[in-house]
Amino acid sequence: MLFKVEMTVKLPATMTEEHASEIKLREKKYAQELQAAGKWRHVWRVAGSYANVSIFDVESNSELHNLLSGLPLYPYMEIQVTPLCRHPSSIHEDDR
Amino acid sequence: MLFKVEMTVKLPATMTEEHASEIKLREKKYAQELQAAGKWRHVWRVAGSYANVSIFDVESNSELHNLLSGLPLYPYMEIQVTPLCRHPSSIHEDDR
Amino acid sequence: MLFKVEMTVKLPATMTEEHASEIKLREKKYAQELQAAGKWRHVWRVAGSYANVSIFDVESNSELHNLLSGLPLYPYMEIQVTPLCRHPSSIHEDDR
Amino acid sequence: MLFKVEMTVKLPATMTEEHASEIKLREKKYAQELQAAGKWRHVWRVAGSYANVSIFDVESNSELHNLLSGLPLYPYMEIQVTPLCRHPSSIHEDDR
Amino acid sequence: MLFKVEMTVKLPATMTEEHASEIKLREKKYAQELQAAGKWRHVWRVAGSYANVSIFDVESNSELHNLLSGLPLYPYMEIQVTPLCRHPSSIHEDDR
Amino acid sequence: MLFKVEMTVKLPATMTEEHASEIKLREKKYAQELQAAGKWRHVWRVAGSYANVSIFDVESNSELHNLLSGLPLYPYMEIQVTPLCRHPSSIHEDDR
Amino acid sequence: MLFKVEMTVKLPATMTEEHASEIKLREKKYAQELQAAGKWRHVWRVAGSYANVSIFDVESNSELHNLLSGLPLYPYMEIQVTPLCRHPSSIHEDDR
Amino acid sequence: MLFKVEMTVKLPATMTEEHASEIKLREKKYAQELQAAGKWRHVWRVAGSYANVSIFDVESNSELHNLLSGLPLYPYMEIQVTPLCRHPSSIHEDDR
Amino acid sequence: MLFKVEMTVKLPATMTEEHASEIKLREKKYAQELQAAGKWRHVWRVAGSYANVSIFDVESNSELHNLLSGLPLYPYMEIQVTPLCRHPSSIHEDDR
Amino acid sequence: MLFKVEMTVKLPATMTEEHASEIKLREKKYAQELQAAGKWRHVWRVAGSYANVSIFDVESNSELHNLLSGLPLYPYMEIQVTPLCRHPSSIHEDDR
Repeated sequence: MLFKVEMTVKLPATMTEEHASEIKLREKKYAQELQAAGKWRHVWRVAGSYANVSIFDVESNSELHNLLSGLPLYPYMEIQVTPLCRHPSSIHEDDR
Repeated sequence: MLFKVEMTVKLPATMTEEHASEIKLREKKYAQELQAAGKWRHVWRVAGSYANVSIFDVESNSELHNLLSGLPLYPYMEIQVTPLCRHPSSIHEDDR
Repeated sequence: MLFKVEMTVKLPATMTEEHASEIKLREKKYAQELQAAGKWRHVWRVAGSYANVSIFDVESNSELHNLLSGLPLYPYMEIQVTPLCRHPSSIHEDDR
Repeated sequence: MLFKVEMTVKLPATMTEEHASEIKLREKKYAQELQAAGKWRHVWRVAGSYANVSIFDVESNSELHNLLSGLPLYPYMEIQVTPLCRHPSSIHEDDR
Repeated sequence: MLFKVEMTVKLPATMTEEHASEIKLREKKYAQELQAAGKWRHVWRVAGSYANVSIFDVESNSELHNLLSGLPLYPYMEIQVTPLCRHPSSIHEDDR
Repeated sequence: MLFKVEMTVKLPATMTEEHASEIKLREKKYAQELQAAGKWRHVWRVAGSYANVSIFDVESNSELHNLLSGLPLYPYMEIQVTPLCRHPSSIHEDDR
Repeated sequence: MLFKVEMTVKLPATMTEEHASEIKLREKKYAQELQAAGKWRHVWRVAGSYANVSIFDVESNSELHNLLSGLPLYPYMEIQVTPLCRHPSSIHEDDR
Repeated sequence: MLFKVEMTVKLPATMTEEHASEIKLREKKYAQELQAAGKWRHVWRVAGSYANVSIFDVESNSELHNLLSGLPLYPYMEIQVTPLCRHPSSIHEDDR
Repeated sequence: MLFKVEMTVKLPATMTEEHASEIKLREKKYAQELQAAGKWRHVWRVAGSYANVSIFDVESNSELHNLLSGLPLYPYMEIQVTPLCRHPSSIHEDDR
Repeated sequence: MLFKVEMTVKLPATMTEEHASEIKLREKKYAQELQAAGKWRHVWRVAGSYANVSIFDVESNSELHNLLSGLPLYPYMEIQVTPLCRHPSSIHEDDR
């Protein structure tokens, strides 16, 4: 089951660069694990923004929330979730 | 080069059902040709809306505009375009 | 799997009262069937608006879209979908 | 008398983790007491957000305000209140 | 129990002046009956707009909805409802 | 001459509780003096918000501004002012 | 007593050019009478829009509403009213 | 003196294709005359929209308004005007 | 050439009262010099807000920017600029 | 390939003036290098704002993102990107 997830990162001005680097490192590792597991199917950078457009592939809303709330950057993100489904004009039976 | 394109269809109340059906048929054919050509890489229905989330793969802004403005439903759509690029955390060299 | 669905009805000024009554009748029948089937778990009127707040309980985003797009008033509605999940402070294992 | 209440939590960047944990603990206890008392009938997590959708069942606007302003997280929440009533298509005489 | 209700009237361009006059006459009569009954405690015109700010005094959300949906201009109004309660700084025990 | 005034209080996270209490105490005293003087005719709490809906009765825009800018909480408020006048459907000659 | 008034004109697509011309002629005459009377102190066109920025000088909110609702284009306008008063940095005792 | 002007075209659903074509033809001729005269320095299509981003070079706000209000499509456009000036980091003395 | 300029002041919570007073004093002096020079033709306080509505009379966009960016409070202001021109219904040849 | 880029700078209140000056100096140097290289074709100041309107000329979305994210002020900017293409009414084959 697919969801479009849009994440925008807003780090507080008071966060030190070391702290930011450390979180981003963990974020990258976590993001790559979820991609490898097939849960986070696509992630693209929005040109000109500290933001991404992603496609998640999960069993349920709960699984989606668990994955997202586990993001190391989660406390510093604005996240918008849009549930998707098959489009009648798609040529793919199962477009992930 | 990838773009997220979000399209929302708003048919005027005065359009006859025959006219609408005829346009939608042409729309579907056109959409499937662009998918087959690899230009329109993904198209998903937004659950609960007459809208889609799409990923286009084009050579330039001009090509994107030509494809979109050729949509039979183009005069009845609100379209939002977001330029995308590779995300540093993506595990795919070329995530389309 | 639960979704909050908010629907606002906007009938075109050109629709005759007979047409409106006929659609609303079918809408009511359809809504009650989905409630009886346990798919549309709650529906409340928003005080002062031709709108409702609803809770749907479905297997997937696709099922949700199929149910919503089958609403006789669907072409005249603005619909907002929010995916829900269990709240850690809920005292109910399964709050539907 | 039912109200939809949507709460979004925004903790200040300067709050220590200890302080946050302590408030959240009190929040959970308070929320569960109100649920047990039948005042807070439903609470769901919004997938991907530090936010909830809730249904309150109270005698009056005043009682609602007293319950909400007693929330330990109240100073850090954006709250939206929507008064609800029976929907004419509901199959439940009293849908709580 | 008090509610602030803000109503903005938007008559369709296709409505004849006779039709508009007839509805407005019924609206005025209805509004004055509710005022006389103590349900519609205040109604003020917003300077420069075909809109009003009102205070309703009702037993429940349902009663409020019934009164508002009975307005002859109801199909042509945008209505916003805000539940009110006693302010701790008010010098009136019961400020209606 | 009446104005609807809506005030929302946003205290900075850095304000001490003592400071906040002291300002609120002065705010309450000031608000009650203006009510006693007939200038601040109504004040209601918005259910679920640190906000109020008020009706002011003043001689001029200048008097209104002087009263509002004298509020101890003025630097921490978002204020919206709406000029009101007699509604043609009001049953009161002078509805304050 | 001064008010900033911003008016944007939106003529319905169905209005004939004759009808529009006739209303605009009456609008101009009315606007010039109010200017000559000193009530409508300034009127400027917003560059690139069918809109104006105006300063009205009236005795009360009621007088303002009467003047504005008497505009021949009133039914086709979106109007925003902002109450003004003397600025402490103004070098004019009475800046109209 | 430069202005960024953004124009979005919204043709009414009732306009015939002949009428639209005739207006667009005049629009193109008018736009090209202004470009040739150096008044309309740049015009770009927004990819995916019936809209443009333009740079005008005029003597005054009045000249800008006269040029824009002379557009054959003017009654069907939403126009946003932003006054520009030399940027301190520009390497061009006079960047038109 | 006239511009409507709307300025809203937002002082950071961390600014000391001494610092604020010193800036405001310089702001007032600067504002009065520009008024005396005929550049800042009108300035009005918005009732109930730390904001003003102003009319500037300048030779060019650049002059306007230079004047505004020289305001001592400039770093703490949100500023909106609207280019104005003569209204065809104005009875003044040159309404400043 | 052209993009309109709008940048608004928001420096945190806690940044020292020295730090701000140092960043702005690097920003200017970087901006001028990109202009000299033909990548940043136009940059204009928005009158009355710490903001610019720019036209970038790049090979791809990725190149655009790399250039923008390399801006020394990037962490303190809100950036909006709009893909542009040739307008059918442009008299320039290649309007940069």
